[in-house]
Amino acid sequence: MRLALGICYSGTAYQGWQSQSTGLTIQDKLEKALAKFADVPRVSTLCAGRTDAGVHGLMQVVHFDTDIDRDTHSWVRGTNRYLPSDIAVQWAQVVPDSFHCRASATGRRYVYVLLDSIVRPSLEAGRVGWVYRPLSEEAMRQASLHLLGEHDFSSFRASSCQALSPVKTLRHIQISKHGAYWRFEFEGNAFLHHMIRNIMGCLVTIGQGNQTPDWMREVLHAKSRDAAAPTFSPDGLYFAGPIYSPEWGLPDTTPAFDWLP
Amino acid sequence: MRLALGICYSGTAYQGWQSQSTGLTIQDKLEKALAKFADVPRVSTLCAGRTDAGVHGLMQVVHFDTDIDRDTHSWVRGTNRYLPSDIAVQWAQVVPDSFHCRASATGRRYVYVLLDSIVRPSLEAGRVGWVYRPLSEEAMRQASLHLLGEHDFSSFRASSCQALSPVKTLRHIQISKHGAYWRFEFEGNAFLHHMIRNIMGCLVTIGQGNQTPDWMREVLHAKSRDAAAPTFSPDGLYFAGPIYSPEWGLPDTTPAFDWLP
Repeated sequence: MRLALGICYSGTAYQGWQSQSTGLTIQDKLEKALAKFADVPRVSTLCAGRTDAGVHGLMQVVHFDTDIDRDTHSWVRGTNRYLPSDIAVQWAQVVPDSFHCRASATGRRYVYVLLDSIVRPSLEAGRVGWVYRPLSEEAMRQASLHLLGEHDFSSFRASSCQALSPVKTLRHIQISKHGAYWRFEFEGNAFLHHMIRNIMGCLVTIGQGNQTPDWMREVLHAKSRDAAAPTFSPDGLYFAGPIYSPEWGLPDTTPAFDWLP
Repeated sequence: MRLALGICYSGTAYQGWQSQSTGLTIQDKLEKALAKFADVPRVSTLCAGRTDAGVHGLMQVVHFDTDIDRDTHSWVRGTNRYLPSDIAVQWAQVVPDSFHCRASATGRRYVYVLLDSIVRPSLEAGRVGWVYRPLSEEAMRQASLHLLGEHDFSSFRASSCQALSPVKTLRHIQISKHGAYWRFEFEGNAFLHHMIRNIMGCLVTIGQGNQTPDWMREVLHAKSRDAAAPTFSPDGLYFAGPIYSPEWGLPDTTPAFDWLP
């Protein structure tokens, strides 16, 4: 039997999603809690979108195979009992064996929250990026248009990236401001390692007037990591969820994020 | 010279505002940072509203006397350099010696954020209270009306409360829902120790239908802590700032909190 789970977590205290020998990752905590609840030696999960150290998950989706027959509410409540307070399973659902949380995803959404203030974050430390110089919304919007569509995103790709191809499709970028907080929304078919943080670095550089909006096109066409701005902080980045065909009958994997700062 | 500071902090990692021998309070961290920046052995501050362990500060105001003559921007930047990432001075201003952050405050604002979900908080752990059974907005609104005005709030007072009088004036209570999150806003002239957390315990009891709205009046009239519901969690409570007469010329001490969940 294949089970899919929706997971929400704060990445601040962890070394990212993917399991490490330290045990200090979200996957380690989740698999340990699942094994405890299921009373088995080990549970192995796959996820829809790995997140880096410090990056948060609004709706991570994982799947795993199990012989344990419990109702799905018990999986949620039982697993949450063994998870740290900053990680919680939101739902569990039995899926066909042909469902694969990564391969079946037709798109992924991310959101980046950025505090625009002369004073650094405090109450929201770890949960927002920070700029202390104002940004031009129009310049960033113009720059973002260069990224829409199918491109070779090598310039925004970390050297550690394991993706087979640097060609991805960015379908949607939306930039808005709410009080002192900027919100950058991204949707694409898939993303390279560090891709959004590298795009954020370039957008902020342009927003602060250090480069023109058209510089984004130059960076993209260079297909070289050296062309882009430094990787921006992980603090304000949230994996907002994978997108699946309704045929899988999963609960909503695209939660609202308007309650973020 | 008397200086006033506006401070923002997350209370999650601290044993409350007030200085303790452990050194693990917000006042301890602030005074240590001020002393380091001013290069003096000790700085003693007073605050507008002490907060309990786990309670957050959107706009705490403190004052202290100093002979150190630096511009106010330096006090902000310099002190923040020595503060932990979850505490930050927002502004500094020279005030008349007649200004007293506690005595000069004509009112105080608090906000309580409550997650209404069958699944416990995770991404927002420590920053929101939690109920897993739905609440009736109308019942809570009716109950809250009993509390408005000047009353003896002994039923909502912690035994450790040091206030001279249990008589306080509650000017304003507003209850609203934003997605899965309830927001409870309170404004009064002053508050007793645990007063809002005890009111929250009663509002939730009434909202879940375990008591009628008129039970709030019974609790109030009993003037006994035994009459009220258990003290609610500190996690979702924010000190939203003291209110001062404009004559003091302070920066805005009533920040927007609509960016909270």
